[in-house]
Amino acid sequence: MKLALVVRTDLGMGRGKIAAQVAHAAVTAVLESRDADVAAWIGQGQPKVVLKVTTGQELLALARQARADGLLAEVIHDAGRTQVEPGTVTCCAIGPADSDRVDRVTAGLPLL
Amino acid sequence: MKLALVVRTDLGMGRGKIAAQVAHAAVTAVLESRDADVAAWIGQGQPKVVLKVTTGQELLALARQARADGLLAEVIHDAGRTQVEPGTVTCCAIGPADSDRVDRVTAGLPLL
Repeated sequence: MKLALVVRTDLGMGRGKIAAQVAHAAVTAVLESRDADVAAWIGQGQPKVVLKVTTGQELLALARQARADGLLAEVIHDAGRTQVEPGTVTCCAIGPADSDRVDRVTAGLPLL
Repeated sequence: MKLALVVRTDLGMGRGKIAAQVAHAAVTAVLESRDADVAAWIGQGQPKVVLKVTTGQELLALARQARADGLLAEVIHDAGRTQVEPGTVTCCAIGPADSDRVDRVTAGLPLL
């Protein structure tokens, strides 16, 4: 099992802002996923990987591809109180799901 | 409501590593908290703040203080597959709880 967290790097977000957005995505993914998937993922120690894309379009295309492959994809829109405009797409969670299925969608994306 | 996520800065973790550790802390806090607290926090849009301390001792003292004040404090020990030694304390989640109660423990800590 694996949870992929994919962050836009073109917004100039600082490391604290990135961490908050990624945490938001991870929490949302856990709340929206099936209990069995969450339990299996937690049982393996919550494996996660943090990856990057360079544009919002790339992020949304990735989420569409994940959903087309039957994966849960949670796109986070920032409230915009700090650093970015309200509603800005900042990151996306894919999974938690079988690692192979997540890897098929995120293959080639570099680590953040 | 607020969830505070407090990160050690003395380990030299990169931004992706920090994001993964903070996400781990946030997910663990949500899973271990009372449903009513989680629901109230989610209903307000998952407010969170990412703060920093400079040593592991400071992080553990903060967690002890939070627990003494009746707050949930989840200390994350890294699996140590990358960047830090296995078992290293990397970050801590405090809450989600009433903002005033969280602020009382984390007052004075700088943003990450």
